[in-house]
Amino acid sequence: MIIPYERLLSFCTDCFMAYGFSQPDALRVTDVLLTADLFGIESHGIQRLARYHDEIRRGMVVVGAQPAVVRETPVSAIIDGHQAMGQLVGSFAMNLAIDKARQTGIGLVVVRNSNHYGIAGYYTRMACEQDLIGVSMTNTEAIMVPTFGRRAMLGTDPIAVAMPADPIPFLFDAATTVVPRGKLEVMRKKGQPLPLGWALDASGQVSADAGAVLEQIIGQLGGGILPLGGVGETLGGHKGYGLALICELFTGVLAGGPTANHLSSVAASADLSHSFWAIDYGMFDDKKAIRSRFSAYLEELRCSDKAEGQNRIYTHGEKEIENQKARLRDGIPVLDKTWQEMESIASELGLYDAGLFARL
Amino acid sequence: MIIPYERLLSFCTDCFMAYGFSQPDALRVTDVLLTADLFGIESHGIQRLARYHDEIRRGMVVVGAQPAVVRETPVSAIIDGHQAMGQLVGSFAMNLAIDKARQTGIGLVVVRNSNHYGIAGYYTRMACEQDLIGVSMTNTEAIMVPTFGRRAMLGTDPIAVAMPADPIPFLFDAATTVVPRGKLEVMRKKGQPLPLGWALDASGQVSADAGAVLEQIIGQLGGGILPLGGVGETLGGHKGYGLALICELFTGVLAGGPTANHLSSVAASADLSHSFWAIDYGMFDDKKAIRSRFSAYLEELRCSDKAEGQNRIYTHGEKEIENQKARLRDGIPVLDKTWQEMESIASELGLYDAGLFARL
Repeated sequence: MIIPYERLLSFCTDCFMAYGFSQPDALRVTDVLLTADLFGIESHGIQRLARYHDEIRRGMVVVGAQPAVVRETPVSAIIDGHQAMGQLVGSFAMNLAIDKARQTGIGLVVVRNSNHYGIAGYYTRMACEQDLIGVSMTNTEAIMVPTFGRRAMLGTDPIAVAMPADPIPFLFDAATTVVPRGKLEVMRKKGQPLPLGWALDASGQVSADAGAVLEQIIGQLGGGILPLGGVGETLGGHKGYGLALICELFTGVLAGGPTANHLSSVAASADLSHSFWAIDYGMFDDKKAIRSRFSAYLEELRCSDKAEGQNRIYTHGEKEIENQKARLRDGIPVLDKTWQEMESIASELGLYDAGLFARL
Repeated sequence: MIIPYERLLSFCTDCFMAYGFSQPDALRVTDVLLTADLFGIESHGIQRLARYHDEIRRGMVVVGAQPAVVRETPVSAIIDGHQAMGQLVGSFAMNLAIDKARQTGIGLVVVRNSNHYGIAGYYTRMACEQDLIGVSMTNTEAIMVPTFGRRAMLGTDPIAVAMPADPIPFLFDAATTVVPRGKLEVMRKKGQPLPLGWALDASGQVSADAGAVLEQIIGQLGGGILPLGGVGETLGGHKGYGLALICELFTGVLAGGPTANHLSSVAASADLSHSFWAIDYGMFDDKKAIRSRFSAYLEELRCSDKAEGQNRIYTHGEKEIENQKARLRDGIPVLDKTWQEMESIASELGLYDAGLFARL
């Protein structure tokens, strides 16, 4: 099913206002969600609405809560998210990092006591749009099994980095697992088997069953997603595991929140931690010169020799910007299962009668 | 062949003094090399001596050159390495980053016009020993093929991060390729086939022939090492490729040096760029509290359930510290080929007659 962007924007904003968020806050949360859908990262888009609905209903997300600075220096801050919606905490924190970068050259802001904040790349793009380098990380409930282990002890633990470039900015946003949890959720909704090398079952064997792996993770029965680099050390699985540890360090450990293995998606509070960096690259040289040589390098990469059978080399952000353009024009694909969830949420919130919604 | 650490220390220091380095400089370079051997990273240890010998002889490394600060702010600096030995440039730059972190909380120093600096993890450990978080990256001549490509366009592009912890610090140091170039050099010296999934031949097919891949890279004939995550996107190869791009951004692009695809190990100058970060994590909370919760998490990881057939989960730095202890006691393994190279270098430098060296 393909839905025009404007309809999803209006529907999503109405939902968040119905929960009690102010219009600017509802628009911000909606923008983070729909940016994921526009970028083609459906795993983090409107298919997550049911999950946010549940978290707001349960009081895990506190509507109207305001994040607050606990301690700061000219280059740093630590923020208590006060269980506010993660997208609001994240925007507040990245804006503070951007302010600090404008003053000193670098802002590094860590956050505790937050909720799921959507795609990490949303916040790095905020810095990028201000002509700064942006970095963001978040921990999540445990889903990654460390090398030689069989129990999830680290999160999907994404690392995002953005840097301005012409004509297409560099927008890197990647889980340190082989794939993020959301991709397993989508495979489960589609009823498709997982590629081998994504996930382990409770005994530590490679599994193709998305539903079983997700249930085992939620039930803390063992198993989980593999680190980038896969099983063991031969192809570098210990590197993905180490990158996740770096993410846990710069989120939960520095911010004073729990690490992934002490988080639970069914607990009273999500207790997630994030970090946000903004770097004014003008500290090092004329900004135009730096931006121009980075842009030239990205172009060299895109134009370099292709592997047999391939006709294109991408730089990071290219697919996202192209998807965004196409989906703003043609609409956003929504899975039937997600559509049913939206219908049920609309009904519960008294936003639409069923007949009206059916014609959306 | 197993050689006592002290003999290698003395031999290596003598070599570098014979090239004309001061004793403190010779000791520093030797310390970087032998730290790699002590850590068990033979690819970056004394087996590289022949390469450094060649680079010094050719004038690619300028003996006696001094790195200089080009531009700085309280949180940043850019340094021209003046073609000095990379280990000397690297130590100078990390010390400057450490000074800035002590003053402001964060120091970010980028370097251009340098040479190979050995293991990135040497410099992050310098910060770690000062109770700071250390980060270091370097670009290298092109060896990584971007996803869907068949020509090496990015370096091995390692990212190292160190953070104090008890009883064992976190010392992460990883190429963003599946393996670093040095591992291919060691496999060639040993005459062993490469595991499939490490490297591509000139046509873009997976190759097991270390010698052929290295020759194709040096001759710029195509092929190279795969990014972490392997071939294509299914297992996340585009993530390793993106991490390498981040490394190129924070080294060559910010520092104003060439990117990997414009570097050559046979050029007149290596033109390598590095970056060094020191972060005073005391900005965020009591340092003991942060260090203690990080240490507890590392211990939880080591103690978590093992996969069937495995009896140990490592945290990063653990193997290195254990190797260091064992090798300081038992000696350092040196390959026959490396031994022959050392003998030839000693003879050329007039340090030992052949008979004496044979009894070393």
